[in-house]
Amino acid sequence: MNRFLEFFLHIRNSSIFSGIVIAVIVASAIYAGISSYDLDPQYDIYLDVFDYAITIFFLIEIIIRMISERSLIKFFRDGWNTFDFLIVTISLIPISNVESIFVARLLRIIRVLRIITVVPAFRHIIDSLILSIPRVGFIALLMFIFMYVWGAIGTMFFGTVDPENWGNIGLALITLVQVATYDDWAAIMGNVIEVYPYAWIFFVSFIIINAVILLNMVIGVIVDVMTGGTGIDDLLQKDRKNSAN
Amino acid sequence: MNRFLEFFLHIRNSSIFSGIVIAVIVASAIYAGISSYDLDPQYDIYLDVFDYAITIFFLIEIIIRMISERSLIKFFRDGWNTFDFLIVTISLIPISNVESIFVARLLRIIRVLRIITVVPAFRHIIDSLILSIPRVGFIALLMFIFMYVWGAIGTMFFGTVDPENWGNIGLALITLVQVATYDDWAAIMGNVIEVYPYAWIFFVSFIIINAVILLNMVIGVIVDVMTGGTGIDDLLQKDRKNSAN
Amino acid sequence: MNRFLEFFLHIRNSSIFSGIVIAVIVASAIYAGISSYDLDPQYDIYLDVFDYAITIFFLIEIIIRMISERSLIKFFRDGWNTFDFLIVTISLIPISNVESIFVARLLRIIRVLRIITVVPAFRHIIDSLILSIPRVGFIALLMFIFMYVWGAIGTMFFGTVDPENWGNIGLALITLVQVATYDDWAAIMGNVIEVYPYAWIFFVSFIIINAVILLNMVIGVIVDVMTGGTGIDDLLQKDRKNSAN
Amino acid sequence: MNRFLEFFLHIRNSSIFSGIVIAVIVASAIYAGISSYDLDPQYDIYLDVFDYAITIFFLIEIIIRMISERSLIKFFRDGWNTFDFLIVTISLIPISNVESIFVARLLRIIRVLRIITVVPAFRHIIDSLILSIPRVGFIALLMFIFMYVWGAIGTMFFGTVDPENWGNIGLALITLVQVATYDDWAAIMGNVIEVYPYAWIFFVSFIIINAVILLNMVIGVIVDVMTGGTGIDDLLQKDRKNSAN
Repeated sequence: MNRFLEFFLHIRNSSIFSGIVIAVIVASAIYAGISSYDLDPQYDIYLDVFDYAITIFFLIEIIIRMISERSLIKFFRDGWNTFDFLIVTISLIPISNVESIFVARLLRIIRVLRIITVVPAFRHIIDSLILSIPRVGFIALLMFIFMYVWGAIGTMFFGTVDPENWGNIGLALITLVQVATYDDWAAIMGNVIEVYPYAWIFFVSFIIINAVILLNMVIGVIVDVMTGGTGIDDLLQKDRKNSAN
Repeated sequence: MNRFLEFFLHIRNSSIFSGIVIAVIVASAIYAGISSYDLDPQYDIYLDVFDYAITIFFLIEIIIRMISERSLIKFFRDGWNTFDFLIVTISLIPISNVESIFVARLLRIIRVLRIITVVPAFRHIIDSLILSIPRVGFIALLMFIFMYVWGAIGTMFFGTVDPENWGNIGLALITLVQVATYDDWAAIMGNVIEVYPYAWIFFVSFIIINAVILLNMVIGVIVDVMTGGTGIDDLLQKDRKNSAN
Repeated sequence: MNRFLEFFLHIRNSSIFSGIVIAVIVASAIYAGISSYDLDPQYDIYLDVFDYAITIFFLIEIIIRMISERSLIKFFRDGWNTFDFLIVTISLIPISNVESIFVARLLRIIRVLRIITVVPAFRHIIDSLILSIPRVGFIALLMFIFMYVWGAIGTMFFGTVDPENWGNIGLALITLVQVATYDDWAAIMGNVIEVYPYAWIFFVSFIIINAVILLNMVIGVIVDVMTGGTGIDDLLQKDRKNSAN
Repeated sequence: MNRFLEFFLHIRNSSIFSGIVIAVIVASAIYAGISSYDLDPQYDIYLDVFDYAITIFFLIEIIIRMISERSLIKFFRDGWNTFDFLIVTISLIPISNVESIFVARLLRIIRVLRIITVVPAFRHIIDSLILSIPRVGFIALLMFIFMYVWGAIGTMFFGTVDPENWGNIGLALITLVQVATYDDWAAIMGNVIEVYPYAWIFFVSFIIINAVILLNMVIGVIVDVMTGGTGIDDLLQKDRKNSAN
């Protein structure tokens, strides 16, 4: 039994195995892309066969990985394994109706994301992105609160003048995302500035505060990475000190 | 009496108390957001009761905080306490007229900002933003002077050609903020380039100088944060040296 | 005589003197801004008197500074003094014709820039901007060459399809500045993509190369500031090594 | 023979030689730029002579460089020499037909890029850009995968509603580049939001994920430059550790 496991471990860690998996995923991605063009129906059969082969390959690959781990608990403890398992399981759900072609194509596209788990460099980049979430998360939450308050003020003042952009808090938040990316914000301001000549205070203050918070976020992340800290410890430590007073 | 203070201090610092306050503020924020949709009048009564409950809760909360501090002077010395006191006081002003619904809603929205004082992580982020004001402030002032000069030149040249954007110094400054965010600046230039074929010098120089000053500001803040200085000391020290010569 | 110099030096370095100069410049700036509004002619006389007072004040101020220095050579060696001298001299040129009102207003605006020489913090910021020119200059030159080549290619391909944007190398360069700021570049591409379906390669490659060069510039400046180098030494040293091979 | 080589080496490394080469390239660039204007046909002959002179000059210059190196293998081992050789060779292809004027002008423009190989500071900047490719390349690849997946989803949902922007995977990718540069993305969203009211999730998630990956790339490059690493070692080392488990 030990020898059997060793054999699978050997296969899993071999660069040839990784290479084949990457090649199949890239083929799957190209196939998903080609599907968006109107293809001659005669090619459908080839694409379908290719699709089945990929699904079966992924199933075998994940079973090999499951066996090569000593226990299922150990297998699922790794977030990446769970991610892969979910994608493969969803791919296996039988879709036969014509109406489900849409869902089938969506699954085929999502399967392309598996390349992240297979190439370790991508996995490392994503891991480092996840590590920066705590620090970025708090500032992003603060930015959301700030946008929410500005959005609510916007609906109150501009809701009747320009209902398409400021009709309710939902529309106002989407409009503020647009203003935050500097996309045509002057036109949005132009819609209301005749009724509210001081609307520029609303827009310019939003742009400046937004830029300042974003700059703070970028600098915070740079400093965290340079000093090796996660940032969140720093924030929480200051909290404890404050509450201890 | 000492025991009474200790009891309040205990309540104030307990995480359950903080949790309740945060929950009420989030509820208040959702309520302020929902108000922007056209709601069935029958729900108005529930929202009003909810509104009163929040106001009373905030009043009690701040009184507890005031009592838990040994003196009012000590309480108001902290900028955050003053910020909270002002928001609660404004909320207590009785608004009964129909015309004041607008003001009442505005107050309800502003009250959401209280979440910043309750969550210590947010307070810390804002504190660090305020610390960076001196350095950023000087560069922002310089940028304003530069925009003011360009704005005045803009009104002189383009004031009669494109009065909507360059009619007076106020409009010109708003137009320059738009150009600084790269929002449709080519269209603004297009309005005047037939009359002044060299207008591109005005716009391109503005964009380049603006980008250089902004880059300098970002780098200054990064270096300040990394070396632990506030930047302003550095600027003032150089001043003293210069004036000593 | 020594005592006289000492007296002037004392005046020049006093914070009261600086305060007055700053106040007059700010007043001058506000005046230049107000001039852009259509004012009642009855106020013209007050503004004129104010204008003369400012001109005379600046003249006296610069004479005090010239005297307080031991020699004219020493005075003009400082770039800031030369900058001030030029602005004051230009202000003194008598303008009496009605046609010259335009030039007079332009001078009034340029005079506002003197605030940079008076406030040492501003002077320090500008000085540090000038220090970063060598490093930034080379990359900016490289970016210009790159824009020039893309511009020339653009005029060749798109010159006849969209002559307004690509008619000659001058128009093409302005269009590329617009594309570099991401302002409506998709619309510019849309003008030519029907004739040249592969025009997206031109635009996307320009955007990516431009972003990479800009990022390199920003990082170069940050590293220079952090390590205390000027960057240019590094570039020139590598040159010498290369040419020595 | 040794003396002959020494003489050529001396010429190649002299700053006068470099100066002449730079002057000719700049003249060539100005000529390429001037060609974009409609010139009087009588100047054509001067431009043609100038063009031949530049071509011959470049040919002689590269022959001198080839001789000054001891072997051709050594000459071509340097990427810059190969780059120069290709440009000069292409310039020498005789173009006589009227239809080839277009190709001739294109070559003339591409020749301007030679200035990068002649000025060592530019060569150094490009070298450092190439050094940052491994780290940036992996993140760029990840960004492409992410854009590809979003693009495929976009074609599925919006393909029939807005075929001009989302008709196939190619159009969708160009549209996503436009959204990534924040150029008129709200208008693109506006085309589909009436049919799919939740399309904002697609666009806002794309903008946020895109910004996070870009920020990660910038920070990664800054940290690499500051710590002197190339980044890619770090990524690959982590891979080896992961695969060793």
